[in-house]
Order: sequence, then C-alpha cells, then structure tokens
Amino acid sequence: MEKPENQILVIFGASGDLTKRKLLPSLFGLHLRGLLPDKFRILGAARTEMSAEEYRKLRRDDIVRYDKPSEEDAKRLDSFMELVDYIHFNTDDSKQYKTLADKIKQLQDECGIDDNVLFYLSMPPGIFDYVTESLKESGLNKSKNGFRRIVIEKPFGTDLESAKKLSRELGSIFRENEIYRIDHYLGKETVQNILVLRFANGIFEPLWNRNYIDSIEICAYETLGIENRGAYYESSGALRDMVQNHLMHLMAFIAMECPPNFDAESLRNEIVKVFKSLKPLSSDEIKKHVFRGQYGEGVVDGQKVAAYVGEKNVAPDSHTETFVAMKFFIDNWRWNGVPFYFYTGKRMAEKKSEVTINFKTPPQRLFPGMCDGPSCNKLTLRIQPDESIALKFGMKTPGAGFDVTQVAMDFKYSSLSEVRLPDAYERLLLDAMSGDSTLYARSDALEASWKFVTPIMERWKKDGKKGLQIYAAGSQGTKEAVDMMMEHSAAFCPLPVRTLRYMPEKKEGEK
Amino acid sequence: MEKPENQILVIFGASGDLTKRKLLPSLFGLHLRGLLPDKFRILGAARTEMSAEEYRKLRRDDIVRYDKPSEEDAKRLDSFMELVDYIHFNTDDSKQYKTLADKIKQLQDECGIDDNVLFYLSMPPGIFDYVTESLKESGLNKSKNGFRRIVIEKPFGTDLESAKKLSRELGSIFRENEIYRIDHYLGKETVQNILVLRFANGIFEPLWNRNYIDSIEICAYETLGIENRGAYYESSGALRDMVQNHLMHLMAFIAMECPPNFDAESLRNEIVKVFKSLKPLSSDEIKKHVFRGQYGEGVVDGQKVAAYVGEKNVAPDSHTETFVAMKFFIDNWRWNGVPFYFYTGKRMAEKKSEVTINFKTPPQRLFPGMCDGPSCNKLTLRIQPDESIALKFGMKTPGAGFDVTQVAMDFKYSSLSEVRLPDAYERLLLDAMSGDSTLYARSDALEASWKFVTPIMERWKKDGKKGLQIYAAGSQGTKEAVDMMMEHSAAFCPLPVRTLRYMPEKKEGEK
Repeated sequence: MEKPENQILVIFGASGDLTKRKLLPSLFGLHLRGLLPDKFRILGAARTEMSAEEYRKLRRDDIVRYDKPSEEDAKRLDSFMELVDYIHFNTDDSKQYKTLADKIKQLQDECGIDDNVLFYLSMPPGIFDYVTESLKESGLNKSKNGFRRIVIEKPFGTDLESAKKLSRELGSIFRENEIYRIDHYLGKETVQNILVLRFANGIFEPLWNRNYIDSIEICAYETLGIENRGAYYESSGALRDMVQNHLMHLMAFIAMECPPNFDAESLRNEIVKVFKSLKPLSSDEIKKHVFRGQYGEGVVDGQKVAAYVGEKNVAPDSHTETFVAMKFFIDNWRWNGVPFYFYTGKRMAEKKSEVTINFKTPPQRLFPGMCDGPSCNKLTLRIQPDESIALKFGMKTPGAGFDVTQVAMDFKYSSLSEVRLPDAYERLLLDAMSGDSTLYARSDALEASWKFVTPIMERWKKDGKKGLQIYAAGSQGTKEAVDMMMEHSAAFCPLPVRTLRYMPEKKEGEK
Repeated sequence: MEKPENQILVIFGASGDLTKRKLLPSLFGLHLRGLLPDKFRILGAARTEMSAEEYRKLRRDDIVRYDKPSEEDAKRLDSFMELVDYIHFNTDDSKQYKTLADKIKQLQDECGIDDNVLFYLSMPPGIFDYVTESLKESGLNKSKNGFRRIVIEKPFGTDLESAKKLSRELGSIFRENEIYRIDHYLGKETVQNILVLRFANGIFEPLWNRNYIDSIEICAYETLGIENRGAYYESSGALRDMVQNHLMHLMAFIAMECPPNFDAESLRNEIVKVFKSLKPLSSDEIKKHVFRGQYGEGVVDGQKVAAYVGEKNVAPDSHTETFVAMKFFIDNWRWNGVPFYFYTGKRMAEKKSEVTINFKTPPQRLFPGMCDGPSCNKLTLRIQPDESIALKFGMKTPGAGFDVTQVAMDFKYSSLSEVRLPDAYERLLLDAMSGDSTLYARSDALEASWKFVTPIMERWKKDGKKGLQIYAAGSQGTKEAVDMMMEHSAAFCPLPVRTLRYMPEKKEGEK
C-alpha cells in the first residue's frame, strides 16, 4: 500500500469530540500500520488556550482511554505524538488566519515539504461559511506548489436550496475535486464490501434485479438517544441526520450499476444515476409511505430512559422526528416495481445497521406452504455490529418425504482478518490524504439526494405535529412502520423470520 | 408421517452382509421411529440351516455390534425381534418355493393381514433370473387381494443388452410399478436435498444453466480397496460399480428440469430426459476424455496397502479399472457446452462424495488477478462425509483499496436435526413398503444410462490393458485425471482451492 504524499493536516475543532474519539485514534491507527506520510504534521486548531505540549498530553490520554491500545502499540504512541502540534485559534477572528498560515509555513519548513495542506473542518455547520471564506481571504485555499484539500462533515445544507448555496460558495473557494464531503458510513468495510460482493462474484449480479428480488430493506437502528446533542438534533431530525446521507448512500451501493472501473468519478457517476432515478414522492405518497416517530419514555437495555421531549436542549413540544420508516421506488430498468425500505431510529430495541435483500418466491411452488414466501430467501448484509453476511434458504428436513426447513449460512467478517477491522475514519482519512475521493460524496449526488428528501420535510413542516407518532423507547418503532415491515418480511412466511415487537407508549398513569 | 400398509417383507439372502449391516438395522430404525406397519413380519430366507430363534439371536447381536443403539433404544430391540422370522431356503430348489408360500400364508394368517408381500432380493445377480422365474412358477408373483413388490440390488445387467434382457424377463413376471431397483445413493438425505435446494429456493435456479455455470464436477472417492469382494469387482469395475448407477443418478438430480410435481413418475420422467440428452461419446472422445486407472501399492491412512492385482480373487494380470475420470456433455438448452466431470476411485487419498458447481467468472473484471476465475465462485454439495453445503465467493479484504479475498460460507447438514440423519436404506425401505418408487430407478432410465456407458466398456475391452494407468494407492488418481481436474478447478484461480497430489507409482526397486 502506498503512503500519501508528504503534507500538513489541519484540524479545525481540535478539542471537539470527533477529534478526540475518532480522528486522532484513526491517525494513530494509520501510524501503527505505517501508512502516514513520511513527512507529516497534524496541526490542531481550537478555541481553547493551551500549549502544544498540553494538547498532546490531553490527546495522548484520550487515545489510551478510548482506543485502549495494546502494550505493544502503546510503545509507539510517543513517536505518533511528535507529529501533533496545536494552535490556539478563534475561527471568528479573521486576523488569526494569518497566524495559522505562518504556523503551517513553519511546519512545512521544519519538515522540508511542499505546500500540501489538508484541512479538516470538524465543527458545527453554522461556521462553515465563515471559515472557508476566511481561508480564501488569507490565501490559504490556494497552494503554491502542492495541493489543497478540505474535508467537511455533514450536514451539507439543510434542504435542497441551502445545499445548492453551500455548494456554490464552497465551489468559489475550492475546486470540486478538492472538496471531501465525509460520510463515515462509506468508510465502513462492510459497506465497501457490498461493491466487492456484487461485482467480484458472478453469482449475485444475475439475481440482483426486479426479476428475482421482491424488496430491499435498509435499516439503521440505535439504542442510544440523542445524548447531549439536543441543540443539533432539534434542527436536524432523523431524516436529515440519517436518511439523506448514510441511508441514501448505502442504498446507492446496493442499487447502482457496475461502474466501468473503480476510480472516484466512475463510481460517483453511478451513485448520482441512482439518485436521479428515484421516483419522486408525491404529497400523497409521503402520507401513505413515509412515517415519522418520536421516542417516548421506555426501557432500553433494562434501564428506564426519558422521552425525547425530556432531553436537554429539546423543546417540550418538539415535533422533531427521531424515527423514520419509508417506502420508495427506483424508476429504472433494473429496479422498477421493487420497493425499497428505509428504517432508522434512535432508542430502538437493538443497535444494528443492515441491508436485507428479500428474493422472490420460486415461480413454481413444489413445496406449498413450506417456507415458500419471499422472506425465505434472504441475503442479509450486516453493517454493524457483528459485521457479517447471511444467506437464508430452504433445505430438506431430514426424514421421509420432501419437507423444507429454512436454514442460514453465514460468514462473519471478522474471521477474514487476524487484526481488527480498521475504523471507517481510518480508511477515509487515508483516502483524503491520498487524494482518493471515491468514498466521499460529490455535490451533484448531494443535490440529487436533497431533491428527493426535501418534499418530505416540506410536507412534515406543513403538517406540524399531525402524523408524528410516539413510540416507546426500546421498541421497534411506530405501529405503521411495524405494519409496513410485516408486509414484506414475514407475511408470506409461516416461520418466524424476526420477532417484531410493537410497544405502544404507555398512557399517563398506566404502569 | 403415515405408516405403510400391513405386509410381509421377505428378504432373500438373509444371512448376507447387506442384511446384517443395512437392512435389519434400518428396519430397526423404522421400528424406533414408529414407522413400521401395524401388522408386519420380516421373513428372512437363506441357505444356512438354523432355527428362527437362532437367526434372531444372530441378528440381534449384529444390530448391537454394528448399530450401537443407545441404552434407551436397545430396550426396544426385543419387540423388534418379535417381528423377525426365518426360513431355511435354497433358491435353486424349485420345490422350496411352495414351502416359502406356505410360510408366508402362515404369517399372514397369524397377523390377520391381506396378501401384501414385498420381496427383497439381496443376492448375487447371477441367480436373479432363477429366483424370479421360480416365484412366477409358484404363483408368488401375484397377490390374491393385496400387492406384490420386489426390490432388487444392482447390478441391473452388465451392459445395454443384458439390461434390456433383464428388464424383459422381470417385466414378464412383475409389472414395472412393482419393481424397485434400489440405488442407495438416492436414499441419502444430501442427494435428495439437491432437489429441495434447487426447487424450493428462488435464488439458485436462475443461475443453474449454461449462462452462469462453467462446469460441474461430481466425485465419489473411497479410501477402501475392494475388501473381500474381488470376485464381484473383477466382473464389474468402477464404471459399472459406480458410474452407471450412483454417479449418473446424482448427475440427473443436478441437471434435470423442474418436474411438474414430486410424484414418482414425474420425477423419473425428468431423470430419463437427462439421460436421453447425454451427448454420446464417440470412440475418439472416449480416448480423449475418459480415463481409467487401477490402484498399485501405496499408503492409505498411514498403512501400506496392496495393489489391486495383489487382492484376493483378482487375476494377477487383471485390467479391471478401480478408477474412472471422465468428461461429458448434456446436449440440451440448459446445459449445452457445460462440461460435466465424474471422478470415482478406490484407494484414494480421502473418502468423499461431493458435487461442485463451478460458476463462471464475472463478465466484467473489475478486480483483475484477484480470484476472478471460475473456481472462485463455487457451490459444493458434500454428500459424505460431513454432509454440508459450502458457497465460495470473493469478499473485500479489510483495509485500503478494493482487494478481494476468497471466503466460504458453509452449512453443516447435521445442524438441521437433533437426531442422526436416517440411513439411506431406512428411507428407501420405507418408500418401498409404502409403494413410493420416486427414489428407485425406472427401466427406461436404466437402459438410457447403459446406452451411454456401454460404448466406453466396449472400447476398453478392445484396448485391453492399453490406456489403463496405474495410480498409487492413497493418491488423487491417475495423472490424466489430475490434469483434467486442474483445467477447471484451479487453472484460473491464483488461490489454492484444493491441494492436488499426484503420486506416480513407484517403479520396482525404488524406495
């Protein structure tokens, strides 16, 4: 594997949670694997006043705490920390960008490297504009003899209009191929494996279309609530937080045509094609096929937990959705008529993200009544936890006659590798440092996905609280969603494929 | 599950190995599962002079020795033995058939049942004719108010002509639907499961044709030599012993079209269709694609073993084949151009029977050089030992880029059932008693399969010893066979899919 070019990585928001828990541990992971550039510095920039020495100490402790490196690995923590520098930096203060530029220059001179800089904006979306604009004013957006790249975190806008505006603005400061819109879902091994599974094998692709597939379900459930992110979540909700980005991209990997090769543009062209083929949801279809919910009180992992409206920084009459279930179609030759489903929610009964391909029933029913429904042939791609692939099918029940039993073959992804699966951020940071944008979202894809979800947001805005269902924390979501799930998952199959549990919220005073 | 009608089961050859090791233990198995008829007797008939009491004692000891019933099961051995009777019987003596008829009548009267008799001929093929002719003369082939059925063991003839003659003769004594030609391979759960796997699932059949399948290998290897069966084997050889019956039927299950339903005639019609679609082998093709071998000395499971020509009752200059490897085609819409392979032999490196479906490489090679050959997508149906299904495919190697690793998902058949898999004979005896001939060979299938293999035998007869290769016991067979195997199994795949080992026979004087 080739190392990235020599460069300076500047992290804005260097004292934030993401930097602590993901970025620095991932960079340390790359260090351990010998994948950092030969000449390299990480420059943290944040509001907190402290020395580089103090910053290194803090981050070192974080890595030990969150990453729990082995004794062997921990020995290499010091050499990693030597790569880390820090600058006290107030993004609002335009004068400080000059100081930043000087600091970058100083590090480049120390290392003896060209003017290659990767900016990582790990900060709230509200200050994007100001930072990028200031980078432009200070000339930091242009390289003298190397490259500039900028990694930005979602949300990329809040609807189609704002996404377009953001694209325009960013586009006036950085070229499209310098902009890396991170979607950490695409950094996951199991998500990337969807492409390998489909296109490195001859046996899946012939089945991968409307002739043989009954329906496709994509779910991303969390048991966690919104934690301390009430302020952010109130302005986002599950649709913006999960559907518009993660689930849409996951769906694109499942639905796309085979690209001519695996370079960034080829792959991203195919993703955009999928988004452009989405059948737009009419207001009536949104009412019938898109359901939103908000968690009420309930029990998760044996613990009584608060309702969404009881969380910190959440309005008591909030109608932000924490759960979305929806059905939609892709209008192209491959997929016309095959329903796709998204299910996502917080405070669900279990934490899992997976894609389920429900195959059609055989056209001739030789074994009537014996597991001959669409849910009897299922391919499940588990993204997390327990990354795995499982194939369900019918086998002969031992004994006389020809009875059929549903069985599953599975393959655990962890058995592939002696070492741990690299974290999504590890992969994505390495890609950005190497200039590979394959797994980053392109602006046209972004706009196409906003175009699809914006009518939903608009309708919900109009409806206000009407249509927002409350589900008990620790359940399977709202009743409508469970009903919809049953349509395809279990209706045709006499065997229990999964246990669905709908727990209506307790009325006040009930025990 | 319904019990068979009340009946008497007459076993000719009741002191033979098959009766001891398979028939009575299987009948005991049915007794344990409550699947024997309510009113039922087993009448053993053999040359040995002994009383019914002595016979019961012997067989009881055999079951304890070979079948090793649990303590719980052993308690029910006495009640099973009460069903067993014995008659000293010399098949050559036409007068004794009257005695037999009287004995059958006596048992029927004792039980109070109709004239339902199932004959099981567990005896050398040479005396078939005489026994069936005598059954006819004594009127035992016709029932007064019930049924007659006769189960016969292979070989069903020794070539096309003799098979036709046998069919004609048997056909003048019993109706076709009264004749049960047993092929114990068809009694195996894993063989029957081929049909369930193919036709109860929607995901295999679309791939099951020349568009997606590169080649199909069917193998049946034994580590055993011919044991004490030299006299039989000298007149048979591997082609008659394994290919013409077991492997041909296994191939038919893999290759056949979906029958309209699972009744005996529908299924057997499809089997015949496959046999009739076999591309006849020209003399030239036999030379190029059909290889025979005979085991020389060698080492099996760490033990030095004798060459075939050193076995008891084998001619020192014998050119009987103990190994066959062949390639052939089925000339129909589904299979044209897909090579089928048979591999069978005694004294091989390992004991196994399995079917391997090698799928074609993907039409577009996105991952060149990375396991993109036909042997990278394989479905392996293991018949024995360790009955299982395994699917090999490419997955993403964890880490950067898009490298592909070959992995396997598998499903062990034994995990389906708490209890042991029923023995093949248990299934087949129950079917014969119940009048279900689905898993028994029909005369037209038999003739069609003889028609296919007879030209091979004729050519070999002409060639004498020319072309017969000696392979070392404990090896993978002859060099030509190993070369042929490599063509499809490993040639395109950089990963070692199976370890092939060709051990040339040691020349005299070599160590």
